[in-house]
Amino acid sequence: MGRFNRIGVLTSGGDAPGMNAAVRAVTRLALLKGIEVFGIYNGYRGLIEGEMEQLGERDVSYIINRGGTMLYTARSEEFKTKIGIDKAVETCRKFGLDGIVTIGGDGTFRGAVELTDAGVPCIGIPGTIDNDVASTDATIGYDTAMNTVVELVDKLRDTGESHSRCNVVEVMGRESGDIALNTAIAVGAVCAVVPEMPTDFDKLYTKMITARKNGKRNFIIITSEGVGKDYCEHLCDEIREKTGIETRFVRPAHIQRGGSPTLRDRVLATQMGCAAVESLVSGQMKRVVCLRGSAIETMDIHEALYLDKMMKNQLTKEEEDLIPPNRLYDMRRMVADRLALKEYLNYMITNIVL
Amino acid sequence: MGRFNRIGVLTSGGDAPGMNAAVRAVTRLALLKGIEVFGIYNGYRGLIEGEMEQLGERDVSYIINRGGTMLYTARSEEFKTKIGIDKAVETCRKFGLDGIVTIGGDGTFRGAVELTDAGVPCIGIPGTIDNDVASTDATIGYDTAMNTVVELVDKLRDTGESHSRCNVVEVMGRESGDIALNTAIAVGAVCAVVPEMPTDFDKLYTKMITARKNGKRNFIIITSEGVGKDYCEHLCDEIREKTGIETRFVRPAHIQRGGSPTLRDRVLATQMGCAAVESLVSGQMKRVVCLRGSAIETMDIHEALYLDKMMKNQLTKEEEDLIPPNRLYDMRRMVADRLALKEYLNYMITNIVL
Amino acid sequence: MGRFNRIGVLTSGGDAPGMNAAVRAVTRLALLKGIEVFGIYNGYRGLIEGEMEQLGERDVSYIINRGGTMLYTARSEEFKTKIGIDKAVETCRKFGLDGIVTIGGDGTFRGAVELTDAGVPCIGIPGTIDNDVASTDATIGYDTAMNTVVELVDKLRDTGESHSRCNVVEVMGRESGDIALNTAIAVGAVCAVVPEMPTDFDKLYTKMITARKNGKRNFIIITSEGVGKDYCEHLCDEIREKTGIETRFVRPAHIQRGGSPTLRDRVLATQMGCAAVESLVSGQMKRVVCLRGSAIETMDIHEALYLDKMMKNQLTKEEEDLIPPNRLYDMRRMVADRLALKEYLNYMITNIVL
Amino acid sequence: MGRFNRIGVLTSGGDAPGMNAAVRAVTRLALLKGIEVFGIYNGYRGLIEGEMEQLGERDVSYIINRGGTMLYTARSEEFKTKIGIDKAVETCRKFGLDGIVTIGGDGTFRGAVELTDAGVPCIGIPGTIDNDVASTDATIGYDTAMNTVVELVDKLRDTGESHSRCNVVEVMGRESGDIALNTAIAVGAVCAVVPEMPTDFDKLYTKMITARKNGKRNFIIITSEGVGKDYCEHLCDEIREKTGIETRFVRPAHIQRGGSPTLRDRVLATQMGCAAVESLVSGQMKRVVCLRGSAIETMDIHEALYLDKMMKNQLTKEEEDLIPPNRLYDMRRMVADRLALKEYLNYMITNIVL
Repeated sequence: MGRFNRIGVLTSGGDAPGMNAAVRAVTRLALLKGIEVFGIYNGYRGLIEGEMEQLGERDVSYIINRGGTMLYTARSEEFKTKIGIDKAVETCRKFGLDGIVTIGGDGTFRGAVELTDAGVPCIGIPGTIDNDVASTDATIGYDTAMNTVVELVDKLRDTGESHSRCNVVEVMGRESGDIALNTAIAVGAVCAVVPEMPTDFDKLYTKMITARKNGKRNFIIITSEGVGKDYCEHLCDEIREKTGIETRFVRPAHIQRGGSPTLRDRVLATQMGCAAVESLVSGQMKRVVCLRGSAIETMDIHEALYLDKMMKNQLTKEEEDLIPPNRLYDMRRMVADRLALKEYLNYMITNIVL
Repeated sequence: MGRFNRIGVLTSGGDAPGMNAAVRAVTRLALLKGIEVFGIYNGYRGLIEGEMEQLGERDVSYIINRGGTMLYTARSEEFKTKIGIDKAVETCRKFGLDGIVTIGGDGTFRGAVELTDAGVPCIGIPGTIDNDVASTDATIGYDTAMNTVVELVDKLRDTGESHSRCNVVEVMGRESGDIALNTAIAVGAVCAVVPEMPTDFDKLYTKMITARKNGKRNFIIITSEGVGKDYCEHLCDEIREKTGIETRFVRPAHIQRGGSPTLRDRVLATQMGCAAVESLVSGQMKRVVCLRGSAIETMDIHEALYLDKMMKNQLTKEEEDLIPPNRLYDMRRMVADRLALKEYLNYMITNIVL
Repeated sequence: MGRFNRIGVLTSGGDAPGMNAAVRAVTRLALLKGIEVFGIYNGYRGLIEGEMEQLGERDVSYIINRGGTMLYTARSEEFKTKIGIDKAVETCRKFGLDGIVTIGGDGTFRGAVELTDAGVPCIGIPGTIDNDVASTDATIGYDTAMNTVVELVDKLRDTGESHSRCNVVEVMGRESGDIALNTAIAVGAVCAVVPEMPTDFDKLYTKMITARKNGKRNFIIITSEGVGKDYCEHLCDEIREKTGIETRFVRPAHIQRGGSPTLRDRVLATQMGCAAVESLVSGQMKRVVCLRGSAIETMDIHEALYLDKMMKNQLTKEEEDLIPPNRLYDMRRMVADRLALKEYLNYMITNIVL
Repeated sequence: MGRFNRIGVLTSGGDAPGMNAAVRAVTRLALLKGIEVFGIYNGYRGLIEGEMEQLGERDVSYIINRGGTMLYTARSEEFKTKIGIDKAVETCRKFGLDGIVTIGGDGTFRGAVELTDAGVPCIGIPGTIDNDVASTDATIGYDTAMNTVVELVDKLRDTGESHSRCNVVEVMGRESGDIALNTAIAVGAVCAVVPEMPTDFDKLYTKMITARKNGKRNFIIITSEGVGKDYCEHLCDEIREKTGIETRFVRPAHIQRGGSPTLRDRVLATQMGCAAVESLVSGQMKRVVCLRGSAIETMDIHEALYLDKMMKNQLTKEEEDLIPPNRLYDMRRMVADRLALKEYLNYMITNIVL
């Protein structure tokens, strides 16, 4: 296993349920492979400032069921600068870290790429509730956040049914409508409003009015935060006006981020944590771990970043030219598949929920 | 059991978890006592419009664990008028209802008093999450709503701890701080802001700054909706400014109203439902059912209304003069005891949570 | 506050959700009053062996929502001996403990009495899910355990309804039927079999057969562990034989002991923890904390033990003679009230559930 | 869409959370496609006896969040006979059912094949918590059951940690270890005992003894019901004897079958329900719906049955000869992949949990 004698592990960006399970798996398997592990606190900021301590087997006990992240997380403007990166590299040298496992979202991966380019090989594990990382079918925390939304909306349905009301619920997901589309299906929402595709509101209102005539008392509409800050209040006014149905708005906000991880997030985090260590041990660095179908795979960290930019329409012509045509083709297909799935989910919401 | 051959049961005002358990108990015990039961839909509005049907044993099966109310609830402006009341009385005559069990909050009880005075004896069961009914220590739905708040805030704590943040959470309770005070203790909040008593914010901020220095990452502040609509946003700004701690605001809103009732609300609702029927059967009408300590008792429905007005400082001199001095004394003591308990809860929050 | 400069706190007997909240409240308020606090691990065994460390404010952070006990618990045969008690007293002298707050059930209180008599004043806080402590209306952990049972049985009801089955569920409570009676009401069980009173099985089977004819698919019967180890398997056989209804047995066992405490247990534990410290500070030692109605009170620790023995029919003639007649009268009333409540709960189960 | 004017839908075998969501999706989409839907009660038994009624849009409202099955389920010995099948076909003719959507496990699929061969085209949807259907990566109810197990064991961990104990938990899954392996990872169990692969108990005990020395208080061992009825009691005795660690046994039994479905099961059930209808409409009958990776596909119902028998080593030489070599190869690979995944999960449990 050559040069990997000591690695660091950090969580960065927004916290997500399951991050602790990933930290645990990375630590336990690395120790088993004879690699020392340092837990870095407060993400890249802590890396710059050297906030870290060595982790033993028992230091990660009893955390697999805990929400949040025992390593904490924080924003770091400094890390976005050349000086910040250099300081981080310096700290790694000082603590003798041969590589770092970074757990977080796309911002975290961008940092990991820069750190990797600066000489500290990183391996990324996708941890964010938003599921907005193109390289993986699912991110750690996504399943838990969606189940939390479902629990909350199930409660809303009770009161919506009793009072004969419409509830508009804004869920997280940043620019991704994944949480909104899946939870909308799961709670029987009449509509999911997401950034990726347009909503035919006239059709929706007609549908609501008809359904109300047929005896439907309770209506749920899920909106993704990506549609904009004050969007929902206006939507509520419009619904009242166009359908005459009493409408209330709820924004569960950060409640969606916490809580004990679901089985799926615990297993996914454990598998990804192990895959990251196995990748390091096999000398495969500069990778991100991904879930594809039911398989855990890894992808080149630069390519993953390009793929992510492609999905978010942020890929520049210059960057595109750097990608080999065959890979470009694969990447385009991945992005297309993903959008197709979202469109199918939306089709089901629009057609079977009444 | 004299004249009670057929009764109606309705739920009115905001829905509360446990209302179904109360409807079930009323129906089951009444049938056992040989009394027919009609379920009235949509509260007083449905009573006016005669929206009701006879309930058998099995019609209330499998609802004890359901949130909301199977009888639905609705507002009725008409019922607040003389004409409305007369129509309601007329419907009762038409359907042969000898009395009505009304489940709801103080508004529901006011309606019950008017209906009683108009010739249809009512018995009130306190069902509201707000616990703002003076005649009972606890209302049906209160325990469930508080446990829901605790679950939600426990999730917030995870992310607050990870990001080192303060979370301000606005809970329900209308003019009553009961939900805020109790949940604040249960989640380890640094403060509960309620309408009943002032908050020493300077002391709070000093405490927060000191605690942060001592390593406390996560802060929770519970506010009661009674403090005002836009209060919390301003509070968040002030906290950031005075303490420098990143602060987020969450309003779980109607999520607090729904969900499967807790054991306590199911048992309380069942006991109160039975007590209402037993009261009717024993010829004691015009009563409200109350929990006092661990005993289920009943109180004269007019007196309960005066007591409630006294607690809310809405008792007029004229009304006060109608109350016998000895009862007035008892009522004042009840109100005083209740405030004393709130002050003690607040004392604990202010002093032991750090 | 005279001689109380340093106290110890321990949890003993079976663990109960809310014990951590009590430890937290004791620690926080004692520190506020200028009293040092030592956390004693593994109950009386740890006290004998001096397994303890000083607790600061932050050592009890983030535990109010945790099940189990951070101080652990263990059985100690040695503590039941004179030598054991002497060793414990010795340890207290050595660590300079002026008194001990003991959290646990009746066994824990017996130990506290002996320790008190041996010269180390103790204050007892009732912490057990079984609610089998006569001096208090509710013990810490009781509400959580009951809500856990309700959640589990609600799941069973789904499958019982789908398959048209009877489910027999054995719940905890040792010799007390409190958990069984309350959860039976909350889940709509057709019967609760408890040690305190007889069950009319012929009446039950007739009722089940009739209900099945009327379309009832799902039946739930709650039994208390107090009725005996192999009781339930035989009961299941008899039900099948007498009613022809397919019957399954489930014993949730220790699942009932764990989990995050409910609001009620967190608030009760916090109130009782504070009351214990306030009692110490006011110089009132050798007390147990109790809930009476909605008030937190304290009772002489010897009297509490006699009351408990009286409820369990273990009070000897000699002990009885030691109790002043007026107190004896009060104690007999308390025991009678308690049994009356159980009988009323059983009445409701037998009559309204169909 | 030719001959499909009216279809039936039934649930059979053990109930599973999400079956209602599937019934809802089938009904809603079929109605949208102009196909009438009859809900058949009590599975094949009800089909034989003609227990069915037509379903409209609103008849499947408010069930997506309900555990169990609104169509009920029942065993039918008669359906396993030629006479039974003939009666069933007769009923279909009588009610004019052009096809049937059957939701259940392998037994249900065997029935569907016979019914299909007898002239009533069926489409199977895999609904069982056991995930023991070879043709699909996941069955409806599987995710919910596993999350229920995780919740229960998380509670057990609290008390195991407090008392320093080992808990042996028997989970469902019949001959499949899927639930045991995944939940073991999710709860941080030291071992999963499953029918598919041997357990090195000497290694396990050594590991437990070492871990206990290193301070690990709580141990969890998950066993699959497939290992045998009285296996666990003996295992507990052996653990106590070989490791000296106090050990308790819990069998959650049918609690695992109920409860509100998770997001994943609701979405999967909705997708599969839609896929079944789309398959019918496109003239593709005699299929079973499967999840492969993240795609919903269908497979020939006979082939699915052979694949299932192959996985369970029940495929006869005669049956094998009926399968085209290329398909045989694919099927063998599917079975191999599946076992490989289980072995990998087991590897992680054995190596990273300490």
